[in-house]
Amino acid sequence: LGAGNLCGCRGIYQLMERRFSFHGGATGEWRVLSIAAVSGDSLALVSKVRIIEGFDADASADWSLRGVTSYERYVTGDERVRLASVQPQLGRVEATRAALIPIKKNAEWWALPQDVRRAIFEERSAHIATGMRYLPAVARRLHHCYDIGEPFDFLTWFEYAPPDAKAFEELVALLRSTEEWRYVIREVDIRLER
Amino acid sequence: LGAGNLCGCRGIYQLMERRFSFHGGATGEWRVLSIAAVSGDSLALVSKVRIIEGFDADASADWSLRGVTSYERYVTGDERVRLASVQPQLGRVEATRAALIPIKKNAEWWALPQDVRRAIFEERSAHIATGMRYLPAVARRLHHCYDIGEPFDFLTWFEYAPPDAKAFEELVALLRSTEEWRYVIREVDIRLER
Repeated sequence: LGAGNLCGCRGIYQLMERRFSFHGGATGEWRVLSIAAVSGDSLALVSKVRIIEGFDADASADWSLRGVTSYERYVTGDERVRLASVQPQLGRVEATRAALIPIKKNAEWWALPQDVRRAIFEERSAHIATGMRYLPAVARRLHHCYDIGEPFDFLTWFEYAPPDAKAFEELVALLRSTEEWRYVIREVDIRLER
Repeated sequence: LGAGNLCGCRGIYQLMERRFSFHGGATGEWRVLSIAAVSGDSLALVSKVRIIEGFDADASADWSLRGVTSYERYVTGDERVRLASVQPQLGRVEATRAALIPIKKNAEWWALPQDVRRAIFEERSAHIATGMRYLPAVARRLHHCYDIGEPFDFLTWFEYAPPDAKAFEELVALLRSTEEWRYVIREVDIRLER
């Protein structure tokens, strides 16, 4: 972030904070425990994942996924206040387990108007409310990719401590049983540890 | 679009439809009538604008702006039904005037939760309702760029017939007087004809 900050160019600075790449290959801080397709095609099995800020290519990677942190599409002001009081940061020392879950939704989902997507997402699928029940155990960062020409629409990165692994399984199982998930046409579940 | 379709790769096909570049320079179907900064820095004066599908660079261009058509962030189902009944397509023979209006909003806007942005956008600024009063005179295509590392957050392209030029001035003046527009930190207004 230093360079962006020093150059005085707010645009570039903000960009550097928002772009992330996940390189799957033989090197990286995170050791892969499992890669499983939940829906659609899986990703090639790799032993490590390397996360970097920015979209720099990694020629040695077997696959690379890119996403951008962005403004909130569904969270309301009230929900944000409640989330902010319990949401942990990434990088906690004890959070040595992680999950990277890339998801792609179908064209029908993207064609729905905003109020209908919101109703499915929260009023009928309780995406935010369910997630909140697993806070502060699970830290999370959402990366958007629908607008940047990637194979997935979202990459969600989760971090948790080993004793919370069971709770995390419960969380993903609950979300996968929702009406929202009927629109998911590709999902890969990658579990990692450091 | 043919190549994308033939390759059988739905991802690429959808992408080809959604990415657009506006190249400002000495060549292009659209002749520039004026370029004026409404807020913040202007763009270099050019005589023509060339619009292409995709993000191909144009080395001869003085500037290039890129955006992606995407899912609706604020329009509700009811609003969409009303819009669909009066919204004209781009490319009408009589619509020989156009406007390209790139806009950037400030960080405060993007940090607002979804319901607060929606309330400012429509309940308090009547962005959709005002726009609808100028349909079917004005055709419009919105391109998003907040997530793709561009200098602007949106590029809106408008087409109208010369007799509707006065109505179009009224529309942009109304929108610029709204609460929503207090968040706009850069806006350039480019008028064109073909």
